[in-house]
Amino acid sequence: MSYRKLFLGPLCDPGQPASFPLFQPQQVQGGRDDGYWIEAFPFSTLTNDCANIIGYGLGTRENASNVEMFINPFSDKADNKYDLDILSKFIQITHPYIVNPRLGKVSPLPIIICDQYGPSMNEIWPNGGRVSWLENVGDPSRPNWTQRTMGRSPAMHRLKAGHFTRNDRVQVCAVPIIVKSSDLTTPAPVIIFTAPDDPRQVQGDWPSEVVTEKHLVHEVVLVPSEGRGFDQILIAGRDGVDLIWFDGVSWQTFNVGTGLPSSPGNPYWGAGSVAVARVGEDSAGYIASSEAFHGNTVSVYTKPTGSKRGIVGNKWTRQVLHDFGPLNGEHTGSIHQVICADIDGDGCDEFLVAMMGSAPADWNRTGVWCYKLQKETGTFTKTKLSNTSAGRIAVAHFTNVGRFAGAGAREIDFATISYSVPGYFESPNPSINIFLSTGISAERLDEEVSFNIVRASSTRFTTEAEFLDVSARKLALVILPPDSPYCVAEDSSGIKVLAGALSWVDDRNKLQERTSAARPFGCQTMTVNAGAVMSGKEGAVFVVLKPSNISGAPPYSSMDQLVSHNIFPATYSADVRALEFPWVKVQDRPWAHGRFKDLEFYNLVGFHVHYADDSLDELVHMQLWTAGKGVSAGFHNHVEKSFCEIHACIVNGTGQGGMRWATVPDQNFDPEDPDLDKTELVVVPDMHEHGPLWHTGPDGHPLLRMNDTIDYPWHAWLAGDGDPNSEQSFDVWVAFEFPSFETFSTPARPPAIQPGKYSILDPITQAVVILKDDNATDGTPVLATLPGVVSSAKVRPATAR
Amino acid sequence: MSYRKLFLGPLCDPGQPASFPLFQPQQVQGGRDDGYWIEAFPFSTLTNDCANIIGYGLGTRENASNVEMFINPFSDKADNKYDLDILSKFIQITHPYIVNPRLGKVSPLPIIICDQYGPSMNEIWPNGGRVSWLENVGDPSRPNWTQRTMGRSPAMHRLKAGHFTRNDRVQVCAVPIIVKSSDLTTPAPVIIFTAPDDPRQVQGDWPSEVVTEKHLVHEVVLVPSEGRGFDQILIAGRDGVDLIWFDGVSWQTFNVGTGLPSSPGNPYWGAGSVAVARVGEDSAGYIASSEAFHGNTVSVYTKPTGSKRGIVGNKWTRQVLHDFGPLNGEHTGSIHQVICADIDGDGCDEFLVAMMGSAPADWNRTGVWCYKLQKETGTFTKTKLSNTSAGRIAVAHFTNVGRFAGAGAREIDFATISYSVPGYFESPNPSINIFLSTGISAERLDEEVSFNIVRASSTRFTTEAEFLDVSARKLALVILPPDSPYCVAEDSSGIKVLAGALSWVDDRNKLQERTSAARPFGCQTMTVNAGAVMSGKEGAVFVVLKPSNISGAPPYSSMDQLVSHNIFPATYSADVRALEFPWVKVQDRPWAHGRFKDLEFYNLVGFHVHYADDSLDELVHMQLWTAGKGVSAGFHNHVEKSFCEIHACIVNGTGQGGMRWATVPDQNFDPEDPDLDKTELVVVPDMHEHGPLWHTGPDGHPLLRMNDTIDYPWHAWLAGDGDPNSEQSFDVWVAFEFPSFETFSTPARPPAIQPGKYSILDPITQAVVILKDDNATDGTPVLATLPGVVSSAKVRPATAR
Repeated sequence: MSYRKLFLGPLCDPGQPASFPLFQPQQVQGGRDDGYWIEAFPFSTLTNDCANIIGYGLGTRENASNVEMFINPFSDKADNKYDLDILSKFIQITHPYIVNPRLGKVSPLPIIICDQYGPSMNEIWPNGGRVSWLENVGDPSRPNWTQRTMGRSPAMHRLKAGHFTRNDRVQVCAVPIIVKSSDLTTPAPVIIFTAPDDPRQVQGDWPSEVVTEKHLVHEVVLVPSEGRGFDQILIAGRDGVDLIWFDGVSWQTFNVGTGLPSSPGNPYWGAGSVAVARVGEDSAGYIASSEAFHGNTVSVYTKPTGSKRGIVGNKWTRQVLHDFGPLNGEHTGSIHQVICADIDGDGCDEFLVAMMGSAPADWNRTGVWCYKLQKETGTFTKTKLSNTSAGRIAVAHFTNVGRFAGAGAREIDFATISYSVPGYFESPNPSINIFLSTGISAERLDEEVSFNIVRASSTRFTTEAEFLDVSARKLALVILPPDSPYCVAEDSSGIKVLAGALSWVDDRNKLQERTSAARPFGCQTMTVNAGAVMSGKEGAVFVVLKPSNISGAPPYSSMDQLVSHNIFPATYSADVRALEFPWVKVQDRPWAHGRFKDLEFYNLVGFHVHYADDSLDELVHMQLWTAGKGVSAGFHNHVEKSFCEIHACIVNGTGQGGMRWATVPDQNFDPEDPDLDKTELVVVPDMHEHGPLWHTGPDGHPLLRMNDTIDYPWHAWLAGDGDPNSEQSFDVWVAFEFPSFETFSTPARPPAIQPGKYSILDPITQAVVILKDDNATDGTPVLATLPGVVSSAKVRPATAR
Repeated sequence: MSYRKLFLGPLCDPGQPASFPLFQPQQVQGGRDDGYWIEAFPFSTLTNDCANIIGYGLGTRENASNVEMFINPFSDKADNKYDLDILSKFIQITHPYIVNPRLGKVSPLPIIICDQYGPSMNEIWPNGGRVSWLENVGDPSRPNWTQRTMGRSPAMHRLKAGHFTRNDRVQVCAVPIIVKSSDLTTPAPVIIFTAPDDPRQVQGDWPSEVVTEKHLVHEVVLVPSEGRGFDQILIAGRDGVDLIWFDGVSWQTFNVGTGLPSSPGNPYWGAGSVAVARVGEDSAGYIASSEAFHGNTVSVYTKPTGSKRGIVGNKWTRQVLHDFGPLNGEHTGSIHQVICADIDGDGCDEFLVAMMGSAPADWNRTGVWCYKLQKETGTFTKTKLSNTSAGRIAVAHFTNVGRFAGAGAREIDFATISYSVPGYFESPNPSINIFLSTGISAERLDEEVSFNIVRASSTRFTTEAEFLDVSARKLALVILPPDSPYCVAEDSSGIKVLAGALSWVDDRNKLQERTSAARPFGCQTMTVNAGAVMSGKEGAVFVVLKPSNISGAPPYSSMDQLVSHNIFPATYSADVRALEFPWVKVQDRPWAHGRFKDLEFYNLVGFHVHYADDSLDELVHMQLWTAGKGVSAGFHNHVEKSFCEIHACIVNGTGQGGMRWATVPDQNFDPEDPDLDKTELVVVPDMHEHGPLWHTGPDGHPLLRMNDTIDYPWHAWLAGDGDPNSEQSFDVWVAFEFPSFETFSTPARPPAIQPGKYSILDPITQAVVILKDDNATDGTPVLATLPGVVSSAKVRPATAR
């Protein structure tokens, strides 16, 4: 018998550029009175896997702002509730703050913040602009905070901590937006505060110096030293985008660009926000900017191919990517921030744009846009990631659930807070939301679940969603990028491929490969006798069956022992997590129509998998079955619905349970009174899957009936009889229902045709051409040929019945 | 030519029992401190289409409760924001209140409310239990409220307004839960307050009387008089379920049942909540109850078949439907309310159960369960409608968007507030949510939309979702129940059926019928020359194309005039409403691969429609196209993907635009250099659709190729050449891509076979059987037969090439 391997299961288009993950939104807090600033805490994405969130609004003259920390529910807590911790209730209007983990040597994870700004740029408090640091004096995860003042400058507005002129002390770069009410002309100081020996003992202000002056600064970004020299400071304001740094002798300035040109009557020009994008090895591959103060223009600065790495000394060319439309009567628009992050994991940063919203409301100007550099063309494409007003964006890792650190790129989540400042711009229903990067979303149907997944071929992230614990197995859906490893429990975990391919080298040094289907009418183990599997060029989508001790272990002598559990993690919606997946006796299913009466035969539904893109292509539908000794699941041939069905056995409790199929034509087999002598059997042992039982052509495509359904022989799962003297025992198996797909072809028949009566059928009219009297009288030989094969085999004339 | 009509498009299973609508959740308010009570305002579902919501928590000793009204955003406001109006800030702990529209003669829509309860049942304020009415002295939609005291009784807990002993005055039935702290034994009074002549002028309490006493009452339900006698009062408490009423002489009591029996050590027995279900003409078909005080048991009282209508005098049998599990150490569980509503519109009420949640958290005990009576079996099935903690449920009409009053049953929406009472039970993240009944949900994919819809055959509600305004047409998706009318703009609106059938009698008194496909290779108008269309036994799913003046009117001489608008209403999510549906030049589509260069040919994507049940069956994918004069959309034959494609032309701007198909075998046609002499054309005029262009067999099934795709001739939309002297003009059409479906069969060919070379093909091996030398030498005639047809027509032996 010779097999030809034609292809590996449902296609998933290898070698594609990185695609975006899905972003699952979750509301952290609704019903806020206002909103302005958000940070992830701790502040470094390198040091924290399940960041907390700090968020606040500016407050008003009447109501001071609460600076609140929301404790991450995905770290070590079982429930999915954001606990709220009020950091500090400031007595007057608060303004943005910054933070830096390197202050950790002074206090575990302190926070630096400024307040006492004034009601607006036209009402700046002349003695305000307080800069404070909050000492974390408690449990780092549930802190208590002590406020200490480090200094003041009116209209203080942006802060960053770092090492700007010395490495032995924490320093804070503090930049007011203006110097006094309504004065947009006088430049404001760029102040460096330097921590005293022990800041906890100091009563007065920290030493400070003014290192330069800038106009209308709306963003300060830290450019880390990366071990050489000092941290640099990138500033966006009316002067455009400037990098300033201390070279050991004096302060230097490099102007990246002047940003949006000034226009008559409009007091705002230059830049409003800025972010530096890593592109491969270059930490400054391009620079993104919004223009100008609360403006509507998105620009990028790029440098010629072959330029040196970094910012300084390169020739940067400004390019306007998009203008979100005319400004309002106050000459402001909707953009509040740009921030870079490699959200697709391809090593090249995207940038996100925080849009506060507009009056009148405009979806384009509300939420989060993502711009992605298309490296081949040098152009940027934009995609909307959220439609909820965003004052600021915090990027972080907010969960580890279903993720695999170390397996390549790491997922970047983000969080936003609505921009809502009474008297300036108020968005409706201000809220804090997180957006979790994932390859698998899930929603509830009626009793079933619909998974929507990214394409394995183009994602850079491994995603796993555990969903069901049954018969001592945890079932999880996994998306694995191309040529990537996935670790399993050797000799105990099993895998069932849904798309693409997995391989491993087994303990006898033999290459094992699994695709969505085994050989036709064959059987193979799902158990992996290695510590990891690898995907191929297309990546892989698969179900992993891990050992579990939550649901009872086999053998099962009664259904009480075979309990299923919904194990969707807390990152999924309440509606999905609240579903139960009960075993329902098949006689009680509406489609049983009186059949399967009193049979120990049960069904558990069910899980659809579609691709989460505009195609919505279907990948598979999965459901589970269990049957006691001697039970027949009923011979059927799928004449009503077209799919390719594969069964994977978790527990072969009856010993000889497996698939039987009729070896005779449909009309010669009575499914209600099956003659097993007319069938063949493939026993499917524990943790095995069988191959296709449908008819395929030599190209691997399923053969179809006249009603377009897939041509199956009569077939059924028949449980074994087990030991008649022992107690009941159940088979448990999973049915995978695929849309029609190509697979290994069935063995080619010999190039000769069996004796029989043949007719010429016109497929359009179904007219049949036959020889008169069913007999060719002259003995003219009839030849059989195959495409590309010359054969001299002769068959009898078409006379036999 | 004779056609046989085999069936009408995709199946939708006629004659099914009523199915549930979808319930689209929307958060009204998140981030609450607490939650307890919710009402729709105004209070009658008969008089209000877009109810506001009143919600509040109980408050604490430190923080009084705000009683807040949320103004409905779907009535006359364009944006989707819930405005909040604080009704009254009560000075101490507030407790449930009631309301009744019949107080309207006293004050426009007053509110009756009680407060000053005390911190708990063990700390009842002896001088509290105030009953107030709030006079609405302002604009009814944005009211200002004046509080006036009506009386007091300690531990006042439930109120209902009505006419209990006289019809000329408003009366209030007021029932405390107990009479003093920690006393669960002494019965509490059932008090009737009667309004004085002009309640606005009265300074002191209203006249009142105690009409009976009951134990531990937790629910009071009004049973309207329906024009005879007085309103009755149904009470759930430790005494079980009692109906009390004034018969004109004295107060009467009828005990429906005693509810949950008492058990040792548990102070709570009887009933905790009660609701009366309408079943057809009987306003008391059954009675639902939860047991006991904050208990875990769901019960119903039923009466024998043939019993008289109503409650009184019937023999009610209690039946426990479900026990949600053991009570906690304080002998309480998770159910707070039961309420009846006909949510599936079949004339028989379902009942909803409000579950507050539990500690530890348990999804089964959190949210809203719905119980539905299966009339055939007398059993109840239960379905989860929400998984967010529900202290109370308010049923109302919260929107009219996409609904058709008068076309049969009316949709019932509901709203819930989380149960969260500090010190007793606190649910996480308390919120107020509405759940909008609909037949159509929509979610965003990437650039496209996925509609999930109910089955037209089993819904009782007509749902319409407008989604796109383009080329002077509003496109809306409509789900129409069986045998139902849908009104259209006569002679200007058009309809394109997606499933089921629509018919109308045209202006020449001729029956017009439309299914998902016209006659093969034919063409028919979509315009309805009548004022309404009717669905058939299966109902119908269709797109209606209404006239619009938002997008520019044809003819279009440039694409600037052909602008599309997203018109999804505010009941859909921000992500769907924020989508734009731009016309994208086909040369810029990634799948163009360099083709269609510089052609005036544009594409607008796209809309998937699936059934919103566990099948997730696909119904159709829709996208739009436009092409300028002389443009060919490119000959293709869908060899990559299997679907049945129908085009509906909105504007035939080029005059002779339409579908061309090759009349020769595929291999004799060059799609890159098409010879139009080898094609036929069906011009598709404005507002017309063409019939199937694929090959079908006599049973109406599409014929398939070897790769299982549908067998199409080469075909393309070819725009007409228009007037060469006039300016540019565009065709605009919609492509409907259906999964393979049956349709009208192609005309039967005559029962004879054309001369030619015929081969015997073995479908398994593709072996071909041929006569040697392609020649039968003895002149044996070959007969052609059709199934069931005896024919003597002779064809030549199979020798001709």
